[in-house]
Amino acid sequence: MKDPAQEVEEVARSIKSMSIRGAAMIAREASRAIGGFSSSWPGSDRQKFMDALRKVALDLHSTRPTAVSLRNGILLTLRGVETEKDVASMKERIAAQSREFRENAEIAREGIAEIGSKRVPKGSTVLTHCNSMAALNTIERAYHDGRVEMVFSTESRPWRQGHITARWLLDKGIPVTMIVDPAVRHFMRDIDVVVVGADTVTANGAVINKIGTSQIALAAHESRVPFMVCAETFKFSKETLLGSLVEIEDRGPTEVASPMRPSDFQGARILNPVFDATPPEYIDAIVTELGIVSPYMATEVIREMFEMDGPVTLEGKRTQFSWL
Amino acid sequence: MKDPAQEVEEVARSIKSMSIRGAAMIAREASRAIGGFSSSWPGSDRQKFMDALRKVALDLHSTRPTAVSLRNGILLTLRGVETEKDVASMKERIAAQSREFRENAEIAREGIAEIGSKRVPKGSTVLTHCNSMAALNTIERAYHDGRVEMVFSTESRPWRQGHITARWLLDKGIPVTMIVDPAVRHFMRDIDVVVVGADTVTANGAVINKIGTSQIALAAHESRVPFMVCAETFKFSKETLLGSLVEIEDRGPTEVASPMRPSDFQGARILNPVFDATPPEYIDAIVTELGIVSPYMATEVIREMFEMDGPVTLEGKRTQFSWL
Amino acid sequence: MKDPAQEVEEVARSIKSMSIRGAAMIAREASRAIGGFSSSWPGSDRQKFMDALRKVALDLHSTRPTAVSLRNGILLTLRGVETEKDVASMKERIAAQSREFRENAEIAREGIAEIGSKRVPKGSTVLTHCNSMAALNTIERAYHDGRVEMVFSTESRPWRQGHITARWLLDKGIPVTMIVDPAVRHFMRDIDVVVVGADTVTANGAVINKIGTSQIALAAHESRVPFMVCAETFKFSKETLLGSLVEIEDRGPTEVASPMRPSDFQGARILNPVFDATPPEYIDAIVTELGIVSPYMATEVIREMFEMDGPVTLEGKRTQFSWL
Amino acid sequence: MKDPAQEVEEVARSIKSMSIRGAAMIAREASRAIGGFSSSWPGSDRQKFMDALRKVALDLHSTRPTAVSLRNGILLTLRGVETEKDVASMKERIAAQSREFRENAEIAREGIAEIGSKRVPKGSTVLTHCNSMAALNTIERAYHDGRVEMVFSTESRPWRQGHITARWLLDKGIPVTMIVDPAVRHFMRDIDVVVVGADTVTANGAVINKIGTSQIALAAHESRVPFMVCAETFKFSKETLLGSLVEIEDRGPTEVASPMRPSDFQGARILNPVFDATPPEYIDAIVTELGIVSPYMATEVIREMFEMDGPVTLEGKRTQFSWL
Amino acid sequence: MKDPAQEVEEVARSIKSMSIRGAAMIAREASRAIGGFSSSWPGSDRQKFMDALRKVALDLHSTRPTAVSLRNGILLTLRGVETEKDVASMKERIAAQSREFRENAEIAREGIAEIGSKRVPKGSTVLTHCNSMAALNTIERAYHDGRVEMVFSTESRPWRQGHITARWLLDKGIPVTMIVDPAVRHFMRDIDVVVVGADTVTANGAVINKIGTSQIALAAHESRVPFMVCAETFKFSKETLLGSLVEIEDRGPTEVASPMRPSDFQGARILNPVFDATPPEYIDAIVTELGIVSPYMATEVIREMFEMDGPVTLEGKRTQFSWL
Amino acid sequence: MKDPAQEVEEVARSIKSMSIRGAAMIAREASRAIGGFSSSWPGSDRQKFMDALRKVALDLHSTRPTAVSLRNGILLTLRGVETEKDVASMKERIAAQSREFRENAEIAREGIAEIGSKRVPKGSTVLTHCNSMAALNTIERAYHDGRVEMVFSTESRPWRQGHITARWLLDKGIPVTMIVDPAVRHFMRDIDVVVVGADTVTANGAVINKIGTSQIALAAHESRVPFMVCAETFKFSKETLLGSLVEIEDRGPTEVASPMRPSDFQGARILNPVFDATPPEYIDAIVTELGIVSPYMATEVIREMFEMDGPVTLEGKRTQFSWL
Repeated sequence: MKDPAQEVEEVARSIKSMSIRGAAMIAREASRAIGGFSSSWPGSDRQKFMDALRKVALDLHSTRPTAVSLRNGILLTLRGVETEKDVASMKERIAAQSREFRENAEIAREGIAEIGSKRVPKGSTVLTHCNSMAALNTIERAYHDGRVEMVFSTESRPWRQGHITARWLLDKGIPVTMIVDPAVRHFMRDIDVVVVGADTVTANGAVINKIGTSQIALAAHESRVPFMVCAETFKFSKETLLGSLVEIEDRGPTEVASPMRPSDFQGARILNPVFDATPPEYIDAIVTELGIVSPYMATEVIREMFEMDGPVTLEGKRTQFSWL
Repeated sequence: MKDPAQEVEEVARSIKSMSIRGAAMIAREASRAIGGFSSSWPGSDRQKFMDALRKVALDLHSTRPTAVSLRNGILLTLRGVETEKDVASMKERIAAQSREFRENAEIAREGIAEIGSKRVPKGSTVLTHCNSMAALNTIERAYHDGRVEMVFSTESRPWRQGHITARWLLDKGIPVTMIVDPAVRHFMRDIDVVVVGADTVTANGAVINKIGTSQIALAAHESRVPFMVCAETFKFSKETLLGSLVEIEDRGPTEVASPMRPSDFQGARILNPVFDATPPEYIDAIVTELGIVSPYMATEVIREMFEMDGPVTLEGKRTQFSWL
Repeated sequence: MKDPAQEVEEVARSIKSMSIRGAAMIAREASRAIGGFSSSWPGSDRQKFMDALRKVALDLHSTRPTAVSLRNGILLTLRGVETEKDVASMKERIAAQSREFRENAEIAREGIAEIGSKRVPKGSTVLTHCNSMAALNTIERAYHDGRVEMVFSTESRPWRQGHITARWLLDKGIPVTMIVDPAVRHFMRDIDVVVVGADTVTANGAVINKIGTSQIALAAHESRVPFMVCAETFKFSKETLLGSLVEIEDRGPTEVASPMRPSDFQGARILNPVFDATPPEYIDAIVTELGIVSPYMATEVIREMFEMDGPVTLEGKRTQFSWL
Repeated sequence: MKDPAQEVEEVARSIKSMSIRGAAMIAREASRAIGGFSSSWPGSDRQKFMDALRKVALDLHSTRPTAVSLRNGILLTLRGVETEKDVASMKERIAAQSREFRENAEIAREGIAEIGSKRVPKGSTVLTHCNSMAALNTIERAYHDGRVEMVFSTESRPWRQGHITARWLLDKGIPVTMIVDPAVRHFMRDIDVVVVGADTVTANGAVINKIGTSQIALAAHESRVPFMVCAETFKFSKETLLGSLVEIEDRGPTEVASPMRPSDFQGARILNPVFDATPPEYIDAIVTELGIVSPYMATEVIREMFEMDGPVTLEGKRTQFSWL
Repeated sequence: MKDPAQEVEEVARSIKSMSIRGAAMIAREASRAIGGFSSSWPGSDRQKFMDALRKVALDLHSTRPTAVSLRNGILLTLRGVETEKDVASMKERIAAQSREFRENAEIAREGIAEIGSKRVPKGSTVLTHCNSMAALNTIERAYHDGRVEMVFSTESRPWRQGHITARWLLDKGIPVTMIVDPAVRHFMRDIDVVVVGADTVTANGAVINKIGTSQIALAAHESRVPFMVCAETFKFSKETLLGSLVEIEDRGPTEVASPMRPSDFQGARILNPVFDATPPEYIDAIVTELGIVSPYMATEVIREMFEMDGPVTLEGKRTQFSWL
Repeated sequence: MKDPAQEVEEVARSIKSMSIRGAAMIAREASRAIGGFSSSWPGSDRQKFMDALRKVALDLHSTRPTAVSLRNGILLTLRGVETEKDVASMKERIAAQSREFRENAEIAREGIAEIGSKRVPKGSTVLTHCNSMAALNTIERAYHDGRVEMVFSTESRPWRQGHITARWLLDKGIPVTMIVDPAVRHFMRDIDVVVVGADTVTANGAVINKIGTSQIALAAHESRVPFMVCAETFKFSKETLLGSLVEIEDRGPTEVASPMRPSDFQGARILNPVFDATPPEYIDAIVTELGIVSPYMATEVIREMFEMDGPVTLEGKRTQFSWL
């Protein structure tokens, strides 16, 4: 029999090395690893188990400390475990919550596609940015329901995920138009709806997503074009409920200087933020697996996700989030 | 003794023929018909009763498939019936829920008038559009509380419900100014508050109401004039929570061409949408019988109306809404 | 031989009785009448001729005192006459200026159509309001150049000039869609360009036009739809240069109450302003016979129209405008 | 032993004479007074006790009838007391609720400072208005976390509370820049975040605060500067849920005319509103002790504060709020 | 006979010591001083006279180097003098231009009042800021024409010129309401038109005026209230045509700290800008003595003021402005 | 001696092959070529010379038919030649106008840099887009005047001219920050002023410039960051005065697909517009060699450039522009 800790370590390593990646995938695998660790835990000392679980949670979380889906996956798997009386019931709860989280995550994208696709008017020209599967599944479903005539795909510099998006759409037989990022406003009046994904949704309704998203939302708003975000509930950040600002990673100069060498720009400062923040006033709807919400309802989604039925004091919230 | 199904059929026919009409009225009558059908149901086979109820629900719903109040009336009357163990308890639940729905609907308008009228500042000039009783009762109450000096009533082409509104106000002794629809922006700086009704409120806070409403809201917003919507909770659409776009009926060319004959415009396309959508950013408050809400809180109203206390999964929502 | 004054009187009567009507027509006929009066003036006393001319100017102007085109027609015909030394040269100048004004007015609309039609993008859906020939000629020319696919025509309550517009377009074989005024915002995202006429353009760039125009401009601006005004230079009001606000006529209750009788609304105030003011920030371009101008350039158009080459003092302006 | 009623009277007198003041302080003292009154109540007749409590509630409330914190303090202390069966359990409930309210109020400001300070970006120049301790504690904490470089303090005419704010900041060693109120927009582009307090938060998300707040919010919005409001939950007004408009006190001419004598302006009308209303669209986040909320979530905060878990009918709300 | 230079020196000293003050007054007195200097110049050496004139111009200008009216007064008095062939014709030109400038300045304010007052709608509530005589004369004339019902006067901190304005209005028998600066937005919906003066108008249409003006313009724009600026043409800055940004003076801490002592705020930075810049998009009209102009027409006013009839090259502009 | 036509042909070929390029350069070389052609024209038949000139004009123009600077260079060189009586005076005029145009063009950029640099506030962070020498010279001069701390340079996909800009700035020793195009809004609040060039300025004030410019202008406007355009007068398009819409070239798929092969996207539509249109409401100032202008003054710049002093009829304009 395997060492329980060893498997967790392997998952952690894979997340860090990006061999497991994608917001949903890393959350599911972390949840599964905790489940496995718990079920194969040999002892019955409640405190020791708690300590071990906490270490596992922290180890997994430290692989991608800014990934809100990972954090939520861990928290939802361990939620309330501290209220159980003995190891047996703790293990039972973890097993159930791990299974529930993974199942929910798996069906979430499908739910989003089902719900979101209905909001694409018939005969639409859709614009998308970067390469969000939640957004693309929604567009694909809308296409198969006869609602989509053309999809505009931005290049999404510096990574050019728009190229992946264009290929994916072409492979599905969906008509695609490729444009560079600066051309978005020029074409905006030809667009019927913008559909993008999200990395994180904050407590006051801002959407953190691939750099350039907020600029597209601004241009959509200027032309009265609906702007729709597809986001599983585990993208909603409970930390922001308690005030945290979302930190935005800078990915270094290489990607920006490319295809030249950064050394060609000796002496230049090169800034490469991976995300930006779209304010809620430019977002018409967020599509989650629980239904359509206004971005201003983000705190209610967080509450629903963590099953906070009644009023929860600050202390109560701190306890509930105490694992990380 | 009457055949239970016969009464339902009669109600359905009356709704279809418009001899029963008005958002609240058709919902109440449908609820009453389901109650009557249920109480006079002779058998005790649970499955047969379920099947019969489902047929009744669909028959009533099909009379006005886009009327959200009708749908909500049926759903609230039948909500949770599928969880009851036998016909007796099903009948008891239906009877209770039918009574409750109709009572609530009856007192809702009064509650709205009481709540909404307080938001009309003393000495106000009020503008209203079309002919919403929820809005008019609110204005009337505000007038009797000494808050209203003048009511502007738009014509509300093509039906000219504004003429009915003007007459109603005059009959109540309330001073009224009549204007044509294109004159709204011209007079907007003289208006202190706009009060209108709603056909449907969507999950992300848009208000579907008589064609022209969104234009008035836009002009009110441009001049910083508060825009208030009076809407019973049964106007909130749960379908939109699951992504549906509200379909807007086109009432054909006759009304638009009037008072000439459409044949005078042989070859012209005539478009006659009955409603338009006002985005939430132009709405200061929605007055419901449960109190004032921001339009962005629409999903919470839907949740409250359907008594979804805690978190409800997509599957849970589908079940709860499975009758229609 | 006819009495010179008699002809003027007849023209004045025809303008008053509306048998001569339309902004361009009344200006041309007034200019022609002054020309005729002048050429048939028998005497050679400079002062007597000046007095007679001033009376003629005032008589013609009093027939439609708020019509800016009429005022401009008279002023441009008489401009600088006070600087001529004797009756002969005064007559010569009046004859020349009358001819020039009428010729210019005749070719202005054609020039506007030529210039304005180029600004309609290929494949456009155009929206127009009321029944402006400058706007319709522009649309017609754009249609014949293959630029127009569909024209939306509002009803334009209370007079329904939109019905005349729809008929005119149909007779030309141009596809037309008829909508009621409150439906404008609902369809705005389908529109590529709005083209309207003007009654008056003010010194600070506002356009006074048929009631409802400003509401359409607001909705166009909200959706980033270009809004273009077609206006001959004689629609630009020099009075507003000296501060005058444009007075907006109220046409009485009958048209608003129609097709019912006003007596059906005994006790109601009925307001029926014929025009409203569209602010320059909602206007992308004004098309004049001298070319495209920004609405903010209105004072330059006035200066150009009155041939004020260099700087003109207030006193200078007063003199130049001293006829009326 | 003291007469129970006597102590309440003393507290009431102190609140009226302003020797007890500050939104939090008066609420806490009123809650404490009710607790004291209750615990020393000698009788056991339920109805008499209810009547006495109601009188106490009204007496305390009448000292500052527009102070929402006072009202909430009283309501939260007495909430649900009417559902208790006998005097003993009523007293127990009141004692518990009084203690809980006061404890919560005491820790609320600290919670707000902890949460809100995290939303101040590193190196920020902060602008504040008037003299809100919730805002100042937040700024102080952010300063100690190395996030604040400079604080702009407006004068806050007519009372000049900005002078108190400037002194308080200087005493804490925090760098401060003093400006007059009309200079806010001039400096807005140098500001990174605006942090203010609140007197009242309404059901549809407006913040009632010191006169001038809405103007600052407007200027912040124009320059895309985040605008953050620090407000304990007891600042949220349940009355506005039922439609009430917040009345804004006018403090008379003396302060406005100062430092001259009002008699110097004999014949002038002098208006001196103490508060104004900032609409939710200009507010990025409200920081409460329960976390960050969008202003549009105000009704949920009210619901949470009053522990309304499930749906609450209008009647239910009236009952719950029936004490005042 | 007096020494020509001595008189100039005296005028310069008086301007510096503020015993001659007010934008119009200092310009007129400087123009008069140059005229006097020129006419009493004894010699006939052209070059010596040029040198002396240049010194006089610089000396006068240096008394208030940021005052655009002073600079324009000097420039308009000396304009083109360098093109004259001998001292006699130079003296003649200076005498004529000095007289013309002073006469124009004297009649300008009256012209502005005549023109501007017509733009105040009947029954208006007017708001003004600070203490501009051009604005107050306009309001006074509008009042006497029966157009003004009430004038709101802001305090205009830090100098409180609003108190002077209130007194002036009361002395004229015009109803006045006094408010503090932060209350402007609160009352904006009661205002029909804002009328203010200007210190400087820039080439791209911004108005530099008393601190707080831009904030009022912003609030007026938000509520669709017309915002009118009264400015003599000599307030238009030709320097900004060539790129200069208007420098905004800081008047030191004393006024801001008042009525306390700045020493009470030891350690605080106190900023006291005297003016701010209102962007042209918030200005509906500028009233000059030459008529109404859009702020966007500012360069044309400058051209008209300097009588630049045709195209003027950069070099030509430099020459024409070469005196200062 | 060379054949006059041959030299023109060579210049035309060089412009077509892009060995002569840059808006200013091609205009200057075309003007020079016409001058050379004219001066070496052997005959004295006026009509033959006219025909030859017209052919030369058309040949040169056809090399880059959408380049407004080329068209203006040709027109300004030939302007009014048709009014000269004989070949000698025609040649003289052409020689003078060719010299004047080239001299003006040469000094224009310097004039723009001098004027524009003054509008950059001290200590500014400047953002620029693409690679405009007029903009870069302005920034360089502002840097040398101690006004610039940092320059943000966008990548400017698809051509990446931003890389050339970054190198140019580094070579001048000016600090530069490189970002990708989608990151503009993310950094906008750190920017003090945006400075860009222009390809074309239209009669109603829109600026046609490198794709992405309008998006940057929109984001600058959202954050109240001044947006300044540097444009020689020969960038102003007289065609747009007569209604022409500026055609925007599509440069084909290769650049967009790069660095992959377009064949990797078989089946995709790839759109690659080289320019977009920035509306005047997002532009604070246009810097020309004649001074600062509001974009709304574009028609006056065109008039000034073509020395149209007084009013010019449509016919007059047509004549004046009749060469092309």
